[in-house]
Amino acid sequence: MSALADNLANQVMTRCDELATCSEDADRITRRYLTPPMKAVHDRMKAWMTEAGLASRVDNAGNVIGRRPSAGGQQVLLLGSHLDSVPGAGRYDGVLGVLLGLAVAEVVRDDDLPFHIDIVGFSEEEGERFSLPYLGSSALTGTFDPDWLERVDKSGSSMREAIAQFQLDADLIPEASYSPDDVIAYVEPHLEQGPMLEQADLPLGVVTGIAGQSRLQIEFNGIAGHAGTTPMLGRCDALVMASEFVGEVSAIGRQTAGLRATVGRIAVEPSAPNVIPGRVELSLDVRHMEDLVRERALNDLLATGKRIADAAKGSFSLLDLNAQSAAVMNQHVSDLLTQSVGACGYEPMELFSGAGHDAVIISKRFPTAMLFLRHPGGVSHHPDERVDREDVAVAIDVLCQFVRKLAEQYEHKPVSSN
Amino acid sequence: MSALADNLANQVMTRCDELATCSEDADRITRRYLTPPMKAVHDRMKAWMTEAGLASRVDNAGNVIGRRPSAGGQQVLLLGSHLDSVPGAGRYDGVLGVLLGLAVAEVVRDDDLPFHIDIVGFSEEEGERFSLPYLGSSALTGTFDPDWLERVDKSGSSMREAIAQFQLDADLIPEASYSPDDVIAYVEPHLEQGPMLEQADLPLGVVTGIAGQSRLQIEFNGIAGHAGTTPMLGRCDALVMASEFVGEVSAIGRQTAGLRATVGRIAVEPSAPNVIPGRVELSLDVRHMEDLVRERALNDLLATGKRIADAAKGSFSLLDLNAQSAAVMNQHVSDLLTQSVGACGYEPMELFSGAGHDAVIISKRFPTAMLFLRHPGGVSHHPDERVDREDVAVAIDVLCQFVRKLAEQYEHKPVSSN
Repeated sequence: MSALADNLANQVMTRCDELATCSEDADRITRRYLTPPMKAVHDRMKAWMTEAGLASRVDNAGNVIGRRPSAGGQQVLLLGSHLDSVPGAGRYDGVLGVLLGLAVAEVVRDDDLPFHIDIVGFSEEEGERFSLPYLGSSALTGTFDPDWLERVDKSGSSMREAIAQFQLDADLIPEASYSPDDVIAYVEPHLEQGPMLEQADLPLGVVTGIAGQSRLQIEFNGIAGHAGTTPMLGRCDALVMASEFVGEVSAIGRQTAGLRATVGRIAVEPSAPNVIPGRVELSLDVRHMEDLVRERALNDLLATGKRIADAAKGSFSLLDLNAQSAAVMNQHVSDLLTQSVGACGYEPMELFSGAGHDAVIISKRFPTAMLFLRHPGGVSHHPDERVDREDVAVAIDVLCQFVRKLAEQYEHKPVSSN
Repeated sequence: MSALADNLANQVMTRCDELATCSEDADRITRRYLTPPMKAVHDRMKAWMTEAGLASRVDNAGNVIGRRPSAGGQQVLLLGSHLDSVPGAGRYDGVLGVLLGLAVAEVVRDDDLPFHIDIVGFSEEEGERFSLPYLGSSALTGTFDPDWLERVDKSGSSMREAIAQFQLDADLIPEASYSPDDVIAYVEPHLEQGPMLEQADLPLGVVTGIAGQSRLQIEFNGIAGHAGTTPMLGRCDALVMASEFVGEVSAIGRQTAGLRATVGRIAVEPSAPNVIPGRVELSLDVRHMEDLVRERALNDLLATGKRIADAAKGSFSLLDLNAQSAAVMNQHVSDLLTQSVGACGYEPMELFSGAGHDAVIISKRFPTAMLFLRHPGGVSHHPDERVDREDVAVAIDVLCQFVRKLAEQYEHKPVSSN
């Protein structure tokens, strides 16, 4: 590994630590879309971009973009990931990919490249604030739906208000989009968030596809009542219904190969120790590499929810459904990434992603590839999330190899979408 | 029924409506210990007490007390109930009993009674703000534990701070207690919160005992992780554990005659749709008329929680346990209440209370009885809570009968505790 990559890996690690201090919560990392800590992250990113010789800007969806301009061409290679986080997150998910992009831009600073490199820090990928993921990448691909602007967060602020409060203009979001004619490729480096690379004892892997995902909000309605006076047999307890449903979600997940099914959030009303729950709202997250398997599991679970509610004389409703079909990565760009891993002396390993990424959205419009970094312990969306500094250095070397190979090929023939 | 009782019943109903407007929430009734809406209730109560010729005061635990003084004796009859509410409450639970006491004081305004009547509006019975019930009646009986003052609410305020903010002095709470030598009896009128009187087609019932109650806070700890990348079989999902537990709570409740077992509150961490729950905290409420049956069920459930956690390689902990043994009402005072019901022309019905009341605490120190009012629909702790105006009028008549019978007896021999 190069000495420069080694130094830059140290810098990436230090910067991940520094960005981890930008949080909504005092005792853990929580950074949702356009919150004040995101502003603090932007300020640091822009300063680091300037330091690396990039021209930085923030688009009207809140994405931070730093351009390493080319004298030789008008097309652009996008490198990056997202800057927001789940509540109680680790310090690498998302942020690491943006900082790796920035490190690559520093290495190739004096290269004569035939394309621009835009380092992108997406404003929103996790979907935490408005229960809607991929806001940043949707803006970049021109698929941002203006109806989303009326969504409100828990505090009652609409997305439009949140954008205005961040000194951005929601009406100009369409201008944030890139044309497919201008984008050569998008490459997203990211923690694996799983155990495959660690088990294979390899620092890096190339992603071939990303699981499709259904995100639902559902509710059970029962009848609230006094916990001491309402006989057990006369009850219609919404939490008892919801609990049976959670058990069924876990069971179908365990019984279906490759399926992931999770209830991550549950809210009870009225939520008092001595009151029988009258209403429960919960989230449901279902993923699979094959869209048909996912849809079948989802339909089974919706039928199960209704059956549970009917048996308890309560009711079950689907409040919201948001789905992403499985995404296939661009063969050509992925091959180039695989060759770059090999050129750096590592066995190239291909793997799937169970997690969603901005690459899901972007792959539908631009040639897209993902590079996974080994994730020691594999504990994701958690403070124990880790990455090895050595693997970060290898990733910088591999990504620089990739950029230079791409430039070489590009001289002969621009990459085309598959 | 008397025309005066009929008029006063109208007034009680109107006042219940007016107090229902004193709420922490705009769209429902929520009134926890020493919150600003409780101050608004105090202001109204004091004005109405003054109107009825009572001398009003607020003690340092926040109880409102109005005295209808006697020229003939120093002992006191306590009449009342509580003024706080659960979140999303009905408009009668607690409040109705205080206003009935006030109506009785108006009827006997010109009587020559051998004892004072203190109308008591307890500040806190539901235990919502500090997860600790019966604060008001504990102060009145001299059983308020000063350690409770250090408890904090969800916003981080300690009880001591809440009391100071309400312009009261926590150090003077001991002065709020009554001596057993001074108290003839405590009588609490309250909605039944159950279906027995409605089923028997009777307006009133006399309570013989109140179920014992265990209130617990428990937690399941698992491992948070990414909902898309963590294989189902490797998960330690705290919500899956908690859900199995909720099912077992409901099952033991259904299988044990007379038992009530309820999980009314559940909180998940980190609480994001795409993160496997790492920790779940829940409330558990278990009640039975026989303390041994309740304790056996509780021990079974604690063992079940541990078994579920062990099987999932997670952990289960008891965070807090608060128990009240079953309470027996005073035979003599209850008999007098039963006679008063009969004297008003209604069949006297005896029944148990599954709900806790201030009477639980007070019965341990002063002779105590409870009068239940028919509860149409039986839906308690809920906006649909109802009471018939006619039953309120009958209750006023019965309670006035009771006061006059007690005065008659008292002339001969003061009541003694059983």
